[in-house]
Amino acid sequence: MSLVVIGTVALDSVKTPAGAREEALGGSATYFAVAASFFTPVRMLAVVGEDFPEQYLEDLSRRDIDTSGILRVPGRTFRWKGEYRQDLNEAHTLETQLNVLEGFDPVLPDVYRQADLLFLANIDPVLQAKVRRQVPGAKLTAADTMNFWIDGKRDDLVRTLKDVDLLVINDAEARMLARESSLLRAARVIREMGPESVIVKRGEYGVALFAANDTFAAPAFPVESVLDPTGAGDSFAGGMMGYLAKAGDTDAATMRQAMICGSVMASFNVEDFSMDRLWRLTREEVEQRFRQFQDLTRFEPLSARG
Amino acid sequence: MSLVVIGTVALDSVKTPAGAREEALGGSATYFAVAASFFTPVRMLAVVGEDFPEQYLEDLSRRDIDTSGILRVPGRTFRWKGEYRQDLNEAHTLETQLNVLEGFDPVLPDVYRQADLLFLANIDPVLQAKVRRQVPGAKLTAADTMNFWIDGKRDDLVRTLKDVDLLVINDAEARMLARESSLLRAARVIREMGPESVIVKRGEYGVALFAANDTFAAPAFPVESVLDPTGAGDSFAGGMMGYLAKAGDTDAATMRQAMICGSVMASFNVEDFSMDRLWRLTREEVEQRFRQFQDLTRFEPLSARG
Repeated sequence: MSLVVIGTVALDSVKTPAGAREEALGGSATYFAVAASFFTPVRMLAVVGEDFPEQYLEDLSRRDIDTSGILRVPGRTFRWKGEYRQDLNEAHTLETQLNVLEGFDPVLPDVYRQADLLFLANIDPVLQAKVRRQVPGAKLTAADTMNFWIDGKRDDLVRTLKDVDLLVINDAEARMLARESSLLRAARVIREMGPESVIVKRGEYGVALFAANDTFAAPAFPVESVLDPTGAGDSFAGGMMGYLAKAGDTDAATMRQAMICGSVMASFNVEDFSMDRLWRLTREEVEQRFRQFQDLTRFEPLSARG
Repeated sequence: MSLVVIGTVALDSVKTPAGAREEALGGSATYFAVAASFFTPVRMLAVVGEDFPEQYLEDLSRRDIDTSGILRVPGRTFRWKGEYRQDLNEAHTLETQLNVLEGFDPVLPDVYRQADLLFLANIDPVLQAKVRRQVPGAKLTAADTMNFWIDGKRDDLVRTLKDVDLLVINDAEARMLARESSLLRAARVIREMGPESVIVKRGEYGVALFAANDTFAAPAFPVESVLDPTGAGDSFAGGMMGYLAKAGDTDAATMRQAMICGSVMASFNVEDFSMDRLWRLTREEVEQRFRQFQDLTRFEPLSARG
């Protein structure tokens, strides 16, 4: 199945206890696409400014990533500056420069409109809805969002969610969106807003799926050293949707495998700054960690041992 | 295998967003023993004061719990008063009255000294060590602790850990004890202190095992409504050790099942105040939730589906 993502391409300046990077390649669509490209071809829709390094576009194009939907427009590229302290689960935003994102009016190339799978990565929910309408035949539309939009554009977000099949969202943001502290009930409230399924991302604690026909939970893969958590959620979504596209199915068993593929990509992504770990990652390493994930989580039924 | 626990028996006054209870039955040894009794007979060592309701002792004795090691001494029973706010993962202690705990000098009845499995529930590490020495033939000794002892009696705790095989500890407390923010590295530091294995409890996020021959992680069972988190960690330990005692083995596969049994007991325990959910719990419900746990966490290998 074909896969399209809309989201941000950013220049990120990040500080963590392990070090710092200035103006490194980042953005929700970027992390998503690079992670997805390990499983399937993926088409990116995004906007960058005149200052965006040509080298970064070349790096993406060398993967199985269609960058023809990345518009270059006058102005400066979107920039995010953030810091992670001891608690690596929480990003502290120091500065957000929307720049070219402010005038972004996404119009999909024709070939993008035929997508089977559509991912609306974290961006203004008004833009997400606009893109959603241009892919009316999508078999599965998934979306991410963040506290900024839940707080600032709640009504727009709720409207967007009506046409979304799967919401991929943080733990705290799920509770915030649903105004409900029990996660199980929060997922139910969100599912009444539109999405048939909700995936809750819990950072270093793993991930859980609440769907009509399935409930699934997995721990995160224990990583020796987290250098930079930026993009973990987007890498998760990219690995997950990429695997669904490759498998050509979205049934419950495939969705579970897809969530493990997503968890694998997220676990690699945090092992280095920006995209650095993903750039040097091999398909063999991905498959090996998937197998390690199975070893990590399996246990025998009671009947087998008393 | 036979199982002994030393820890506290308490009168707990607890407030949560779901309600409040005054002077309800609590304590680390109590939660442990009741949870363990679903799998195996268990012997309790603890101390209570003259004011401790006889009814509570009768409730325990009706289970497969040996209460002959619960000393009744002059004075008032240990009391804990605490509150949980929106974040149910964190207990706020309002008052601790040690009372009869202060003079507690644990001396084990002879039959207790033959225990195969010993659990040193959360209590002063000096008392834990004293009990440990009285069961020199234990095949497996496990212990719990808390920030109070890590902060206040660190040297005693480190000495106690030299003779412990398995430490069962909270996420934040593992990092605090090891002085290391990466959980994987924290577990390694703790294992160098003595325990061959470390189980890290993560509240609503599940549990992880770090051992010489195994690494295992499981999410928590998603509970509809958490009424009172008190005793979740002790119920986990009780279910886990109770299952090991019943299985008569502590190999890696049995340990994984035991951790799921512990997670099952913890998930039931939080569904009501004090011991109320455990009192009305059936063995059938325990087995059913174990099976639901397997449904919740399993996924197929990549090779099976491409």
